[in-house]
Amino acid sequence: MSFKLTILGCSSAVPEIDKHPSSQLLNSNENFFLIDCGEGTQLRLKENNINFQRISHVFISHLHGDHFYGLIGLINSMHLLARKKELHIYSHIELKKIINSQLQVSNTVLNYPLFFHEISKDSEEILFENEDISIENILLEHRINCSGFIFREKKFKRKIDKDAIVKYNVPDFYLNNIRSGDDFINLKGEIIKNKQLTKKAKLANSYAYFSDTIYKKSISKKIEEIDLLYHEATFLEKHKNLAEKTGHSTALQAAMIAKKADVKHLLLGHFSKRYKNLDLLKNEAQNVFNNVIIAKSGMHLNFKTLIQNK
Amino acid sequence: MSFKLTILGCSSAVPEIDKHPSSQLLNSNENFFLIDCGEGTQLRLKENNINFQRISHVFISHLHGDHFYGLIGLINSMHLLARKKELHIYSHIELKKIINSQLQVSNTVLNYPLFFHEISKDSEEILFENEDISIENILLEHRINCSGFIFREKKFKRKIDKDAIVKYNVPDFYLNNIRSGDDFINLKGEIIKNKQLTKKAKLANSYAYFSDTIYKKSISKKIEEIDLLYHEATFLEKHKNLAEKTGHSTALQAAMIAKKADVKHLLLGHFSKRYKNLDLLKNEAQNVFNNVIIAKSGMHLNFKTLIQNK
Repeated sequence: MSFKLTILGCSSAVPEIDKHPSSQLLNSNENFFLIDCGEGTQLRLKENNINFQRISHVFISHLHGDHFYGLIGLINSMHLLARKKELHIYSHIELKKIINSQLQVSNTVLNYPLFFHEISKDSEEILFENEDISIENILLEHRINCSGFIFREKKFKRKIDKDAIVKYNVPDFYLNNIRSGDDFINLKGEIIKNKQLTKKAKLANSYAYFSDTIYKKSISKKIEEIDLLYHEATFLEKHKNLAEKTGHSTALQAAMIAKKADVKHLLLGHFSKRYKNLDLLKNEAQNVFNNVIIAKSGMHLNFKTLIQNK
Repeated sequence: MSFKLTILGCSSAVPEIDKHPSSQLLNSNENFFLIDCGEGTQLRLKENNINFQRISHVFISHLHGDHFYGLIGLINSMHLLARKKELHIYSHIELKKIINSQLQVSNTVLNYPLFFHEISKDSEEILFENEDISIENILLEHRINCSGFIFREKKFKRKIDKDAIVKYNVPDFYLNNIRSGDDFINLKGEIIKNKQLTKKAKLANSYAYFSDTIYKKSISKKIEEIDLLYHEATFLEKHKNLAEKTGHSTALQAAMIAKKADVKHLLLGHFSKRYKNLDLLKNEAQNVFNNVIIAKSGMHLNFKTLIQNK
């Protein structure tokens, strides 16, 4: 059961040779979710040895170019490389027209099914779920409609404790009942509690992606005790006025959200290119919250090793 | 008076880390013309130390993604970096809607004037001219409407021969007449021909860009004696059937056009990724035409040194 995040790009606005616009890949038990898709994302996937045909769902936070200009190229390359598998796009509705008009003008009829799913601009809901994970949108506040995403692994079941099964003489045919949470009554009529026959379940991981947004205090309620929060930190506190003007946050503000929500780790990103030394942002955030990570293109975060003290 | 071409990308279809989609920059006497604009072109310009704000005109051959997916990102970056200067786009009309819908959805009102100029789908004409250059479209044949471009420097005037001016006692006030082509009549009534007072003019350079197209024999008439012909060579002759099916040409066919038109040099590009060794394409073309160059991202061609035997 993997839960791994790869940062493909985490710079804001204008792409540079070593600073790529927003995109991340979340691998949750071999479900491949792409989050945002700035220009050049298909090359970033290749650089990170990720076969982009494995992506099944794409989540676009908002329709500023640095978050979606790479999507049409990715869709087209998937087609040219003979994809057959469905692709699902979750975004605000306007993207559908933009993508379709570009396919139409080139007479491209995709050889795989492409589905658009509209993200609401005024309500929060589960966008997708399967047996492994649920994904919901969170309303952020930016210059245009913008959506955060929370990815939550489904709760795992407790695992059979083989030694206890032997000890208490539980017959094979009853094991599925134990897996489902039943207690066991032996021949003497004694009740053996399910907890005595099973081991603690693996804790489910959770990830929240918040980019781009103003400092929105109330949002912390929605991500309480989440494992990892990616929060944009476009600016330092000394440029707070710029953050306010452009609908962004400072590193300190991101940390205040992380602290209030009591998340395990805070991942900062969406950096303005004015900062050459990103440690300044890290230090600022660490004034109020300890576990701060600075995002970097090509960074891999494995939640299994990252989140140790749950 | 410069006339220099930089290859930014010359691969077909799906971008790869070291194989970029179509884009070229022509610098004609410090007029910067961008020809096609595949995904990532803005980064290729940076890699080649070309300040993209200097581009004044963009020519898009056709609306397959590998020729224009990088344009919206470039337009947006120009805006974010505070461009004020006009930008002119020449393309088939559908591109205007595609670009505008992407600007609109992000509430972007560009801080510079952006002009779209429609390229006709059924006639050839001068698209642009100034005192240095004229640029015309040529109808190519591809799966969708596709346009080639010919860039022709304007004829240069003959230059004053200072020694002859002294020798024939031409007064200063008459020099502009000489520059304009007039003869000179001296005090004795003798006619001194303009040719005796001036030196040979620099020959004007010319460049034709033909990508993507089937083998179209008749097109050679339109590019007779051109200095450099960029002709797509997506395939080798052994894949001629694929070329026909997909609306492309083989290296041999490109060379046959070059030979028939008696151009000075042939530049091959738009290569299919199936060929690891591009010398195979060069060799095939050289069976019928000598001066063959294989395009490569980052290649600079200075017409002054390239074209020696005019």
